[in-house]
Amino acid sequence: MKARVHVMLKNGVLDPQGEAVRHALGQLGFDGVEGVRQGKVIELDLNETDAAKAEQTVTAMCEKLLANTVIESYSVEIA
Amino acid sequence: MKARVHVMLKNGVLDPQGEAVRHALGQLGFDGVEGVRQGKVIELDLNETDAAKAEQTVTAMCEKLLANTVIESYSVEIA
Repeated sequence: MKARVHVMLKNGVLDPQGEAVRHALGQLGFDGVEGVRQGKVIELDLNETDAAKAEQTVTAMCEKLLANTVIESYSVEIA
Repeated sequence: MKARVHVMLKNGVLDPQGEAVRHALGQLGFDGVEGVRQGKVIELDLNETDAAKAEQTVTAMCEKLLANTVIESYSVEIA
């Protein structure tokens, strides 16, 4: 079973990577970019066959390791 | 208009970040993780109101800046 986790900085937390991308896009001539946020995507390949259990496990992984919940939010998709 | 870009290392390209995550998950007691790949997600906030044009622009951004197409693949979602 495959799972995909998105980890993004929470709104209000300064995102220097995103700002750098926005600046670089402007310099390359891409106008009309109002904001850029950059985050991580983690694709997991799991043994688990039960979707509900897989989601529970992946949520625990996010809380313990994948996301810093003080400044980052995460979302889990099971496919 | 919002756009979301996923940039992942191509299959076959060594992913040390993903391997490190897999190892750390194992040490935390999460068994049954067969593979981990880590990539980037970039959320763009665009002035453009036409979805087709926005997709074209974002694809150009990927080719020029956001992805290293030698080793990375990307996908664009317009929302």
